[in-house]
Formats: sequence, structure tokens, C-alpha cells
Amino acid sequence: MTSAHAQKFPAVQGGGSLILAWQIKNKNVLVVGGGEVAAGRILNCLNADALVTVVCPPSGLNPEVAYRVGQGQVSHTPRNFEPSDLDGADMVLVAVDDPEASTQIWKLCKERRIPANIADVPPECDFYFGSVHRDGPLQIMVSTNGKGPRLASSIRKFIAKQLPKDAGKAIEAIGQLRAKLRTVAPNQDEGPKRMGWMTKISDAYTWDQMCDFTDEDMDNLLRFYASNEVPSLETLMLMRENPDLSKTELFDGSFGFSVGA
Amino acid sequence: MTSAHAQKFPAVQGGGSLILAWQIKNKNVLVVGGGEVAAGRILNCLNADALVTVVCPPSGLNPEVAYRVGQGQVSHTPRNFEPSDLDGADMVLVAVDDPEASTQIWKLCKERRIPANIADVPPECDFYFGSVHRDGPLQIMVSTNGKGPRLASSIRKFIAKQLPKDAGKAIEAIGQLRAKLRTVAPNQDEGPKRMGWMTKISDAYTWDQMCDFTDEDMDNLLRFYASNEVPSLETLMLMRENPDLSKTELFDGSFGFSVGA
Repeated sequence: MTSAHAQKFPAVQGGGSLILAWQIKNKNVLVVGGGEVAAGRILNCLNADALVTVVCPPSGLNPEVAYRVGQGQVSHTPRNFEPSDLDGADMVLVAVDDPEASTQIWKLCKERRIPANIADVPPECDFYFGSVHRDGPLQIMVSTNGKGPRLASSIRKFIAKQLPKDAGKAIEAIGQLRAKLRTVAPNQDEGPKRMGWMTKISDAYTWDQMCDFTDEDMDNLLRFYASNEVPSLETLMLMRENPDLSKTELFDGSFGFSVGA
Repeated sequence: MTSAHAQKFPAVQGGGSLILAWQIKNKNVLVVGGGEVAAGRILNCLNADALVTVVCPPSGLNPEVAYRVGQGQVSHTPRNFEPSDLDGADMVLVAVDDPEASTQIWKLCKERRIPANIADVPPECDFYFGSVHRDGPLQIMVSTNGKGPRLASSIRKFIAKQLPKDAGKAIEAIGQLRAKLRTVAPNQDEGPKRMGWMTKISDAYTWDQMCDFTDEDMDNLLRFYASNEVPSLETLMLMRENPDLSKTELFDGSFGFSVGA
């Protein structure tokens, strides 16, 4: 029985990380240090809509960080770190060339239960960063769990090349359709029907096809929700050209002839 | 000048998440609930070597969770959640069909500054999960930032199919080489040389090639480190067949003839 179950359920494969999409919109992220590593961290955080404060003497800011400070994209505390900087911080990222100071900040963060990452000091990290591909709502993160950072970046580039063009746009389109669906069918108890129909939609078209869907196509798709149907791509394109087409005409085949005419 | 800089530095693209590889090895993760969603979360955590405790009445355990409890893979507190369950918890994952109880747990977690995820309640989540491909040390996480969970899973499968076979094995091989290198060249001030050589290695062979590297190949590669060289794949294969071959013979071409003989 044990072996039957072992086959039935996925085997545990230890040694990995728990990969998470952390939500830091409007949260306070404290970045200690203003060099190249800090610049990368800052961009990661801004891309997730965080409120970033950089603590670093002005002379320590690299051009990118200085640019973002100048643009008002991040706040700047122009001096070395002080413990009071942690007040109100939801996350702390340290990237300074001073192991002792780093360890001190790490300890303070742990006392205050603030998630923290001390760059290049794995034991002083609640989390690591990976190599991330970004395309609109799509984010793909590659981690080699420290075995090959260089490879992680190669793999990310490899994946980016393989992805269909405008994959992000297709996801955006699906997201919009989902939002519209909630507007036309707002009933809470229709949740399973909505979810099932969205699944059918996701399965019916390829990414490339969905990238080209217009607002009009979305509205046309929604006409099929009530009867829990999903039109073929051909049907959807016919509807685009013939806005007044009724579903009956589409399904009884009577329309097919006039198209060829 | 501003526009020149704007071109020079990556533009901020808000609306994303901060994707992180959370380190929960030997950390206490509390899972509230024992259904299908909980089962998925539990596997994620076990794959990252967490110490998992499931709080759930015995009748609420689905077969997979019950199996893992039976195997001793997770601890089980066979009753409903109580606030004292949070003592010592480093992370809390809630997956129960009780919005009020969930919100209560979320609030307690925030009071105690414990990172938490309440399944299906985005505002009560410090982080979301995505669809993760796992191959040994390699982890690839796909997030659509809530726009299309179904698509995230399709994209993950698409990526898995595109990856070279044994990509994980290649990463493992590179990791082993890095570790061996630290043994043969332990000097701290050789850090840049070691890193530069590892980069050359990563660039010199394809994944497929690296997947096939044996322990012997690794040792042979290391013979080229002192002179900061990287052998061609052909040279490496020659060395495999001829363990006593000296580097001089390989480089002056005198060996080439005897191979064909």
C-alpha cells in the first residue's frame, strides 16, 4: 500500500527554495548601499510598486541609483545606516562591502522580524533573488539555488527566446476577459461556471491567437458564456466582420455559404 | 540629459511582484487546513526542506496530506486552529473554506509579523504562489500576477518542454565543479580568477554537453584552471580516453595523429 501511494503522490524532492511572488506594493523597502547590486535590487522593488528608501552617503551612489533618486523614484537618506532606519521597514536589502556592518543590520532585522537579504552572505538571507524575465503581467524566475548564477541568467535568456511573441499581451487579454466576465456575470454562485468557461477559453486558442484578440473579440466571446460555449477561432473572426451575426446563424451553418460568396 | 539617462537605465515597469527564492530549510511552516490546496502548499514546503505542521481535524485531511502525515513527512495537530499554534511559526499558509476564521488568522499573523498567505484572498497575502518547474537544483517559477493562473501552468509546461534534457544535471555538474575548484584553489584573493574561469567554462559548452561530464572530466577541466584556460570539448574527450595525456601534448597538436591511428 505504501508503494502504491508513493507512486500516486508526488515524491518530495528536497534541496529547493520556496519560490514566491512577494507583494510589496506600497510597502516600505529599505535598501542599504547604493552600488551596482543595490541598483538591481531597487529596480526589482520598483517593478513591484514598492516604496523604496536608499540609505547611503551621496558619494556611494552609482549613476543608476543617483538617477532614480534624482527622478524621485526612490527616497534617499544621504548618510550611513542607523538602526532607526528600520522603523517602519517591511523589507530590508543590504548591499554594502562591510561584512561587520551587514551582520549587525541582519541581527537587528531578525530581532524586529523584518525579512532581509544581505547580498553575498547566504546564511544572512531570508530569501535569495533569481534571474527574472518580465513581459507585462508575466514574470518568469529562474533559480539554480546557488549552483550556477551565470547559468540562471543564460536559462532565463533561453526561455525568453522560446516564448511566443507577446506572451504578456495574451495574458493581459485573458485578464481583461476575466474582468469583463465578472461584470456581465457578477453572481457569486456562478464562480465555478465562470472558472470552467475561462479554462475552456484558455484551452481553445493558442497564445499567438489570443494576442490578436481585440476588445470587440472579447465582447463577442462573452456572448457565448451564457450557454457555456466557446466559439472556434473562425467563428470569432466571422463575428468580427459581421457584428450583427446571431449565434443561431453561426451554429446552423447557414452563414457558411454567404462567406464564400 | 534626462532622456539620455532614461535610455541608459532600465525603465521601471510597475505592476509586478518581487519574485523571491525563500529559504525555509528547517524553518517552521504552519499549514492550516488539509485539503487539496493545502496538499500543494505542503509539497512546495517539503521540497524546500521546511518543517511542516498541519493543523486540521483528522476528517479534513485529503488522501495526499493523510499519506504525508502517515509517512512522518509532516507533523499533524488533529484539531481546528488555535492562536497558540502560531508560537514559533516562521510562515503560515491557510487553506480553509472559512473566510472569517482565515481573516482572524491573518490578523494574528500580522500582529506577530509572521509572513502569511490566505489562499484565494489576495488582500490577505504577503505573497502568492506561482507554477513551478523543478529539475534538481533548477527551479523556474511562472507568475501571471493573477491574470491567468491556468495560463501560468500552460506556460510552465511549455517551458519544461523547451528546456534541454537534464538541464538540472548540467547545473549540478557546474555546481560540483565550482565546489571542487574551491578545494584546489582555496585562496581568497583568487576569487576573481575563479569566477572568471567558471564563466568561461559556462560559456564554452552547451548544457547537453555538460550533462554528460563525468567526475573524471571535472578533474581534467581543473587541470586547465592554473593557466586560466578552458579546453575544447574534443580535448576533454581525448583526455577521457587517455588519462596520462599531458597538456603539452594536447596543445602542440602532436597527439592529434595518434588518435586517428
